[in-house]
Amino acid sequence: MTAAREEAKEEKRPLILVTNDDGITAPGILALMDAMQELGDVVVVAPDSPQSGMGHAITLNSPLRLDKVELPSHGTGYQCSGTPVDCVKLAVNQIMHRKPDLCVSGINHGSNSSINVIYSGTLSAAMEGAIEGIPSIGFSLNNYKLDADLDASKHIARLVARNILEHGLPINTLLNVNIPNKPMAELKGIRICRQALAKWEEEFSERLDPHNRPYYWLTGKFINPDKGDDTDEWALANGYVSIVPVEFDFTAHHAMTSLNKINWDDEG
Amino acid sequence: MTAAREEAKEEKRPLILVTNDDGITAPGILALMDAMQELGDVVVVAPDSPQSGMGHAITLNSPLRLDKVELPSHGTGYQCSGTPVDCVKLAVNQIMHRKPDLCVSGINHGSNSSINVIYSGTLSAAMEGAIEGIPSIGFSLNNYKLDADLDASKHIARLVARNILEHGLPINTLLNVNIPNKPMAELKGIRICRQALAKWEEEFSERLDPHNRPYYWLTGKFINPDKGDDTDEWALANGYVSIVPVEFDFTAHHAMTSLNKINWDDEG
Repeated sequence: MTAAREEAKEEKRPLILVTNDDGITAPGILALMDAMQELGDVVVVAPDSPQSGMGHAITLNSPLRLDKVELPSHGTGYQCSGTPVDCVKLAVNQIMHRKPDLCVSGINHGSNSSINVIYSGTLSAAMEGAIEGIPSIGFSLNNYKLDADLDASKHIARLVARNILEHGLPINTLLNVNIPNKPMAELKGIRICRQALAKWEEEFSERLDPHNRPYYWLTGKFINPDKGDDTDEWALANGYVSIVPVEFDFTAHHAMTSLNKINWDDEG
Repeated sequence: MTAAREEAKEEKRPLILVTNDDGITAPGILALMDAMQELGDVVVVAPDSPQSGMGHAITLNSPLRLDKVELPSHGTGYQCSGTPVDCVKLAVNQIMHRKPDLCVSGINHGSNSSINVIYSGTLSAAMEGAIEGIPSIGFSLNNYKLDADLDASKHIARLVARNILEHGLPINTLLNVNIPNKPMAELKGIRICRQALAKWEEEFSERLDPHNRPYYWLTGKFINPDKGDDTDEWALANGYVSIVPVEFDFTAHHAMTSLNKINWDDEG
């Protein structure tokens, strides 16, 4: 291959933004960088500390720090003092010289299926990418431990990302990919699912501090009354990788007819 | 009226949870309490500091404080050290003895129309109420100033809340109510709308600290290419109160067919 042709080929490599909510030192993001480096040129911009449960928070009332860091065996990355959504905004506006071809977030240590899509910083980062017009995907492994085996997740992340680079995504849509905690050979395949309509039932743990003032820890259990075999929860429980297409138009279009029947201007 | 009949009437008064994201001392939440006190028994649980832009963040890695406070001319309330979503979870689980009949959030100082629904703590609090199965509404006034005139907003909040107490809401749906910054006489009415598909274009302001290290302030401008007269942005620009029904099933159902056409198991 001539140098010129090699250069032309180089130019066609996709530009991929990698982020997460567990922080830039989490094993999950290093695994995702490995998976993406085979597909394109990777830029990593991630929080400098864990940001689980941050949802779509942005930092309005304090300034943000952004620092270059050397990652073990993974080259240079950028760490940010803000939320996962801040990371995507900073990456697109301050670091990358063109809109990336793909934004991937994760691999999250713990499931983001069902209602967790709402609380998850991982998915909010991907949603911010989608709002910016970038094909975006959040990846989560159904195992909370930092020393979880990430081999199958890496393989799935590469497979899904390659397909999206090739086929693109429907307009205003991102993907929420959840991966069962199993070796590759035991995964039954990939299913397109809808979000199971489940919720967390909170149980606050009330304690007293040394000054006898109460404080509360949020705990809870996951309650899923939605048993449909088209849900992400069903897919995961049955050994499939679940892919839920997610949108950022939150309008409940189905509710418009009944709301239009109310005579709002009637003072009652 | 006999004492027994009076008591029976008392028992039928709706129980209303009031919260916000501007903090328990903001004029907007006091105005919302005023409006709701005419409709039912009010319990207020709100953040002890401003939490704008917190989205659906929850506090997982630190404990929460919850303290009773006396509010000027508004009786007793509860302030919480966490996010707006934390406030709703704590209210329902630790403070109220039964599920409230209504959860209202606001009145936010500033618009939460269009894409702002995603970043807004006000709307996330209402969304959490809806997830808990409570009819829930977020109210926002299109004026960022803390000394804004809240009279029209108070009137609209009472009107909308009374209608929802009477008619209920479609399943898994909350309301995002935005109010133009105008006196009541100039409001043209109420419109049921869809979320305008707009976005923020970020412009980070980069500065140097006294030690010559850079830091960044998030700023931006609102870009709305969606000119539909069925959008909330159109309604607000034309003097109407906008009501967008919002859902917490984020599934992009319209995207499923095309995603199912991809051969995901093809290793390529």
